Amino acid sequence: MAEVKATIESVKGFQVAGVHCGLKKEGKLDFALIVSDVPCTAAGVFTTNQVKAAPVLVDMERLKNHAHHIRAVAVNTGCANACTGQQGIDNALQTARWVAEAIGCDENEVLVLSTGVIGTQLAMEKIKLGIELAVKGLGANNWDAAARAIMTTDTRPKSASMQIDGYQIAGITKGAGMIAPNMATMLGVMVTDAAFETDTLNESLQLMTQSTFNRIVVDGDMSTNDTVLVLSNGVSGVNNPVDGDALFAVGRKLAQDIVRDGEGVTKFITLTVQGTPDTASAQQIANTISTSPLVKTAFYGNDANWGRIMAAAGRAGITIDPQQSKLWITPGEVTERNAESLLLFDAGMPTIYSEERATEIFKNPEVSILLDCGMGSESATVWTCDLSHDYVSINGSYRS
Amino acid sequence: MAEVKATIESVKGFQVAGVHCGLKKEGKLDFALIVSDVPCTAAGVFTTNQVKAAPVLVDMERLKNHAHHIRAVAVNTGCANACTGQQGIDNALQTARWVAEAIGCDENEVLVLSTGVIGTQLAMEKIKLGIELAVKGLGANNWDAAARAIMTTDTRPKSASMQIDGYQIAGITKGAGMIAPNMATMLGVMVTDAAFETDTLNESLQLMTQSTFNRIVVDGDMSTNDTVLVLSNGVSGVNNPVDGDALFAVGRKLAQDIVRDGEGVTKFITLTVQGTPDTASAQQIANTISTSPLVKTAFYGNDANWGRIMAAAGRAGITIDPQQSKLWITPGEVTERNAESLLLFDAGMPTIYSEERATEIFKNPEVSILLDCGMGSESATVWTCDLSHDYVSINGSYRS
Repeated sequence: MAEVKATIESVKGFQVAGVHCGLKKEGKLDFALIVSDVPCTAAGVFTTNQVKAAPVLVDMERLKNHAHHIRAVAVNTGCANACTGQQGIDNALQTARWVAEAIGCDENEVLVLSTGVIGTQLAMEKIKLGIELAVKGLGANNWDAAARAIMTTDTRPKSASMQIDGYQIAGITKGAGMIAPNMATMLGVMVTDAAFETDTLNESLQLMTQSTFNRIVVDGDMSTNDTVLVLSNGVSGVNNPVDGDALFAVGRKLAQDIVRDGEGVTKFITLTVQGTPDTASAQQIANTISTSPLVKTAFYGNDANWGRIMAAAGRAGITIDPQQSKLWITPGEVTERNAESLLLFDAGMPTIYSEERATEIFKNPEVSILLDCGMGSESATVWTCDLSHDYVSINGSYRS
Repeated sequence: MAEVKATIESVKGFQVAGVHCGLKKEGKLDFALIVSDVPCTAAGVFTTNQVKAAPVLVDMERLKNHAHHIRAVAVNTGCANACTGQQGIDNALQTARWVAEAIGCDENEVLVLSTGVIGTQLAMEKIKLGIELAVKGLGANNWDAAARAIMTTDTRPKSASMQIDGYQIAGITKGAGMIAPNMATMLGVMVTDAAFETDTLNESLQLMTQSTFNRIVVDGDMSTNDTVLVLSNGVSGVNNPVDGDALFAVGRKLAQDIVRDGEGVTKFITLTVQGTPDTASAQQIANTISTSPLVKTAFYGNDANWGRIMAAAGRAGITIDPQQSKLWITPGEVTERNAESLLLFDAGMPTIYSEERATEIFKNPEVSILLDCGMGSESATVWTCDLSHDYVSINGSYRS
């Protein structure tokens, strides 16, 4: 299979821009625009938080009726446009309207995304400026600027692309904190120059996010704004490619990048729970372990503290039997045991393992944990991270 | 009603000791013994974690058959005796046996509690020494030593007592981290010189923990060892006092002390969710808010970040309508609004409030938050805290 690249040169029929319009300080890029030369089919996955930001509500509505005819996505940072009432909705609609006027399409063909502080209204004069600058700056090769323009506390832009069978799939994303199962302050925009039917695209996106963006845990929080969009313009001439792996591979790369660049993250953990009667149970146990502050601080301390992991597993609300459980750690990013795996826990008790070797494994920037519950044949993997001093610093002073 | 005191002088018919037997370093007290002159009725509430420590399993079994005839409780720190297999069970039983021999009772009349590191076996020669020293040191006025001997990362001993209607209720507890709804590495031993029937005692304990120990949240983790025991010896001559408020008041004081002394805690938060159709919904929303790392780090940063609170409420899995919701903050520990309350959020949007005033309120060491969901007449209060740099330091290096 073709490889996923960490950059996007260009995607046929898409023009993009990333500009500064004053929403962020110090000239940082804060507004991105992605425009397709021709109408796209589009699909979206949105936050399940009951407190939904205005752009989420607008896009959900828009994709109900216009998913076969989308031309552009506008993204602003600095302001989430969440908890902003009717004015927030009006501002989201106005943003789309201005974009539509500038690029010459119907306002219903524009989607909008916002991320940033909750509860403040969009500074519409800045948005207007952002649209003007972005439309002027549109170009096929500006993906890096677009990826930078959607960052908040991210430390680096996140892009991925894959060329396969005559078409391309690419995407940019932003994450950082507030990342939980079922997404979180996480925006993703994916594009492809292959043509997909709306239903196929929607189904593929749902399936893909299930096993990628919904499998990452930074802090267990979930935001009002989470959205992953995908736009398909068909300009490559490839119709309905059947291989779903490309979308999955690009999505996985973007999702993992979010964890690797999570707030204050020093360690990337691949946690696999297997041997459960069903996938949901494995997922539930994995989520409980990966959101446990005690587990996450132990990761930070390079402490192979299987006791905290087992204690977290035990309170996941799933029937497990410690006597049947086994726990391994392995350096690197793997979902199965290998020659370097170290068994820490077996049959209700710790094994007689070398504490030195365990600490050595945990000092790797990437560590994998495998918990076998011995009760079935299903499994689930989540990608998660440690909880560090820097996480507290970043989130203790975010608004100030 | 009588007042709850933060100390215990003595409780009729109980002798206690707190000694050092080498489980902790530097001569710190690490073994406590509580002995009643006469058999007690007893009740216990235990961790719902499926990974249960040996002493939990032993005590649960013992209270099934001997709840009307308990003489002593032995508590060790330094080692949780969890994930220790059959040898762990044997060691817990041996501990009880040695205590029984030393004080002259049946081994079934002794309960045991452990707290500390998971997965290591009890150092039985030290336990034996602890029992010898403790039995020699038993006295009516040693409650402070006993409270100190059960501490782990606690920074101070936690005691409470109340004299009322001719009898007394008293208790000691330990907490620190890993405190979640449904308890967590939390041990509590309460005693009374009133006489209670076993069933009444059990029922009262269940009710009391529901609204006290189960309403405290430090980090959302739950341990393998959590236990609250209550022993009633009837030596005061008071039989079956009907006023349940004393047990509740002492339990609440102990539970709140655990939060106030939580790992790295700089702020004590009283969070009340009201206006829900049922108590369980209010509790669920309160738990989700109080375990959110983003909310807790905002507390640490003196940031009245209602946006994170509303976002957490929105992902609690309970139907809420932001348009119907209101959020107030108030200095101090209250469960209802007062003249100092500040409304931050109303009808889906932030109010126009003084950010300066909000920060001023949040700079108090004790802050109360009231979320009214506007959907019913039920409510729930939890006591929680911030997430600080020190929490990460303490838990990133606990075993080293």
